[in-house]
Order: sequence, then structure tokens, then C-alpha cells
Amino acid sequence: MPEVIALIGCKGPTQETDYLAVLAAAMPEERIVPFRLMDDGARDAARVAIVANPDPAEVAALPNLVWVQSLWAGVERLVNAFDRPLPIVRLVDREMARTMAEAVLAWTYYIQRDMPAYARQQRAGVWRPHPYRKPSDTTVGLLGLGALGIAAAERLLGAGFRVTGWSRSPKAVPGIEAMHGVAALPIMLGRCDILVCLIPLTPETRGLIDAERLAALKPGAALINFARGPIVATDDLIAALDSGHLAHAVLDVFEVEPLPAESPLWSHPGVTVLPHISGPTDMPSAAATVAANLREFRRTGEPPQGIDKARGY
Amino acid sequence: MPEVIALIGCKGPTQETDYLAVLAAAMPEERIVPFRLMDDGARDAARVAIVANPDPAEVAALPNLVWVQSLWAGVERLVNAFDRPLPIVRLVDREMARTMAEAVLAWTYYIQRDMPAYARQQRAGVWRPHPYRKPSDTTVGLLGLGALGIAAAERLLGAGFRVTGWSRSPKAVPGIEAMHGVAALPIMLGRCDILVCLIPLTPETRGLIDAERLAALKPGAALINFARGPIVATDDLIAALDSGHLAHAVLDVFEVEPLPAESPLWSHPGVTVLPHISGPTDMPSAAATVAANLREFRRTGEPPQGIDKARGY
Repeated sequence: MPEVIALIGCKGPTQETDYLAVLAAAMPEERIVPFRLMDDGARDAARVAIVANPDPAEVAALPNLVWVQSLWAGVERLVNAFDRPLPIVRLVDREMARTMAEAVLAWTYYIQRDMPAYARQQRAGVWRPHPYRKPSDTTVGLLGLGALGIAAAERLLGAGFRVTGWSRSPKAVPGIEAMHGVAALPIMLGRCDILVCLIPLTPETRGLIDAERLAALKPGAALINFARGPIVATDDLIAALDSGHLAHAVLDVFEVEPLPAESPLWSHPGVTVLPHISGPTDMPSAAATVAANLREFRRTGEPPQGIDKARGY
Repeated sequence: MPEVIALIGCKGPTQETDYLAVLAAAMPEERIVPFRLMDDGARDAARVAIVANPDPAEVAALPNLVWVQSLWAGVERLVNAFDRPLPIVRLVDREMARTMAEAVLAWTYYIQRDMPAYARQQRAGVWRPHPYRKPSDTTVGLLGLGALGIAAAERLLGAGFRVTGWSRSPKAVPGIEAMHGVAALPIMLGRCDILVCLIPLTPETRGLIDAERLAALKPGAALINFARGPIVATDDLIAALDSGHLAHAVLDVFEVEPLPAESPLWSHPGVTVLPHISGPTDMPSAAATVAANLREFRRTGEPPQGIDKARGY
């Protein structure tokens, strides 16, 4: 049986059809088959799986897998999901970095230009201009300086904002004040008018932004979470908003998605709820990135650089 | 009596004090006096008036005025306001152009990233991602290609949007498709996903965006009015929103400001009401521009280039 590539974990048949079409167009030389259509022979013949949100049992049913390609940048659900220590390759895609950096700038403007306050005033019929705050007087702090953080830093600097950043390990990013390590985190937080979370979810970052870290932010600061819900402690966030220490939160990600109907976040006046739209996967671009990874694998016989499972990303 | 400069039309004593301080700091060599503190000798000694929203009677009370410097870019209230054909100098200020261009990009993102739809969904407790539309697939049309329009075009192009523009007379702006003249207006409107008004209010532009021009926009287009309220026919705008032809309108300017409580715009679900905040005057920057104009006047004896009153700006 010739080799096949398994496609696993699409959200319904429409998404499966869409993904298959785009992936096939990007690598017509490969045979890509959804897991549900694979017989025993095809399962034996699969050396690579392309996964969205996979059922680990389906991955376990492919005995000869060599590596797994994620269609997403965030892989926290995959790190310890599989029965074998398979290399897991994150999607590191230029178009997703562009889209995410755009979202960071768009919702930074949303805060800096007082859009939440003007929306509240409109509902109350109140005409009241707020003092204008220049980007050059506004510090945006990026929590996470990976590919997405660096792309966001460039967009924010281009728009005239002051940018600071924090990462686990040292990173040098032109034009920004980059700090690293747990001890430096309160210093970075103390400079932020707007804190933007772009950090992977790992055991170390789960609950990272808690009451103590929120208290370290400047009074009147705002929070934007475009990373993963559990990075921010929801109860602590609500308390910081209710006390007035935090002016606003833009949340695109949540512990449970879709956000459950009973969540107090839906109706909190200091919270903007978004349905996980900050950095959508652009399928043509993602397929091109995946195709390049596969071609390199065919050429060298080596899987692409996988995530560091101890680190979690 | 030594020459003085009259300051006319501030909004209350606090604004007057603020303006005086900033103007005095920018031109310590000049003596600037609020009209209400000018005796007959000072009135005779005034050759220049710096005006915000002046009472024409106060201008008329200064017999030896040579020219009038506006603190605002929009001078439609001044064009025919005075008893003599005084040169009127608009504020053409780089910082205001920067701030306005930033507002154009910020509220363009507001539309492109579906912020109004997500706000409605949040109030209804609905989790529904909308398809992402790239800037490169989104055409922003600039109505008006003066200093503000050109600054906005640069920012939009830098963010990857397609930009088209329209002006009364021919303008060449790098990177954008620039049209001119009344006959070309429907062609430009037909390309717009987002139309941004940045044009001066004149007899020719009053009511320019009426039912016919709104109908020429692409179905589902949005409108941003950062120019002057009367440029858009409010009843026609509401009808276009109600029919679904127009998806949303961001209005920062109105026929009467503050927007009266009884206006249906306050509560229209397709309208974002802003309290005239898109391009605030930055007083230090404006004062530096005014000081430069005055120094040139002292040097040459000639007033700076005033507006063309027939044209209206």
C-alpha cells in the first residue's frame, strides 16, 4: 500500500472537506485521507498525521506514525495526549502571525481610543469626550516574545506605541525593552498601560496572571488575552475589574469554549468577549507551510523540528 | 500701545487658561490677550486674532485685524462669518493629521475585525465567529485627499488595506487609486467596503452623501464620518442601514453637537456614536504651528496663505 497522510480532528464534514481541498491543492503529490475513511491498510501506511483537534485514540490507531503536524499554533492539548513520544510540529505560519499582530494593534487601538467607554456612553446617551492619549505615551506589554509576540511588537512600534515584553528565556527584540524570568515579571507589569497575553499555555503559565500579577499592573491598565484562557485567573480578573484597578479586559480565549452561558464574563461591563477570532488559521497559508514541512521530510527523511515537550511548546 | 494678539472663542475659562499657557510657551515674544480682557487700546492694537469658536461680534470689534488664525482644521463656520474679507488661516497641523490618520485606521479595524457584531453578540450571549476578511481584500475609500486624507492613506496602505480616494480636483497620492470630479464619485463609491469622510464642509459637500450616493456603495459596506455632520444626509443614512444595504456607520460628527438626546442615532443598532474625538487639536503642536505662522508674518509682513473663500476651505 502506498504511503498516506492521515487528517484527524476536523470539526465536522464541512471543515474536513474544506481542509482536504486546500491541503490537496498545496501538495498534489501527497495522498491525504481523513481518519474515518482509512481501512487497516491505510492506517498501517500512514507515517504522518495532520491534526486539528484530534481524538488521541485515532492517533493511537496509526502504528507507523513518525510525526504529527498541528494545524494550530497552540498545542497544549497535544503535548501529553498521545500513546507514544511522537514529534509534534506546531503551525508557525507567517500569515497567522500577521493576523494576530493585526488583532493586537486593532484591540490596542480599541483600548487607547476609548472605544469601550464610548460604547457605554452611547447606551446611556452621554456625550463626553475623554482626553486623548498618544501612542507615544502608552506602553503595551507583550507577555510572550515568540513569533506572534515579535510580529505584534513590530506592528505596535510602527504605530508609535512604547513596547515592553517578557518571556521565559532571554530574547532580543529590536526597539523594545525585553525582560525575562519570573523575577522580572512584576517590573514589566508595572510599566504596562495595556498587557497583551501571547504566551503558550504550559504548566508554568497556567494561572500566571493572578491577583498578585494583576495588582502589579499600573492602576487603570487594560488586559488583552489572545493566548489561552487558563493563563488568566478569571475570578482574580473580575475582582481587579470590580475594584477599578483594571479598566478593561478584552478576552478572546477562555477555560471552556464556547464560553458557557452562565459565565459572569458575558455581562461584565468591563469585559469584551470575543469568540476566539484573534488569530484564525488561514488555510491556504497553513497548507503551504504544512506542504513545505512535508517536502522537507521527504527530502531528508527527518521530521521537522517538534515542540519541546518538557517546556510545553 | 504695543501690538497684542487677540484670543477669541475659547470654551470657558479653563480652556482659555490652558490655551493661553500653551500659546505663550510657544511664542514668549508675543503678547496674547483674551478678548474679554481687552480694553479699547488693546482692541486697536490687535493685528492678529487666534480663534477657536469665535463670536463674530468680537472679531468685528477689532478694527485693525490683518488676519485670523483658526485653531481648528475645519473652518466652515468662519468662511462668511466676519464683517470684513479677512484672510482666514486653517490649522494644518502634522500632529492632528497623525491623530486623525490613527483614528481612521483604528475605526477601520473596528469594522474589518467585526467589533460591532461581536459587541451585539456579547449582549445577546452569542458565541459566533465571523469569517475573517483580510485587509488586502478590503477597500477603504477616502472622501477627501487633503492633508488628513493623505495621512490616512499612508496609514491604511501600511496596514495592508486597498485604498481608493476621491477629491474635488485631481490629486496624485502614491499607492492609491485617486479619482476626482462629481462624475467619478459613483465609481469610487462602488469600490468601497468602507467609506471614510474626511472632506471639508462647503456648500458643495453639504448633503453630498445622500440616498443615491449611499446606494452606490457596495452592499454590506460601512461608513465612517470624521469630517462634518452635514456631509451625510442623516435620514438617508438611517434608511440605508435599515434596509441592510449599509452594515454599519461610525459617526463622530453631527449636524448639531452635542448630538441631541432625541436623535434616533443614539440608539440605532447600526450606528456607533462618538463625541467628536477623532482628530483632537493637540495644543502644544497647534501652538507651535501658530507660532511659526506668526514668526513668518513678523518676518515678511505678509499673512500666511488663507483659505479660498469661494472654494470654502
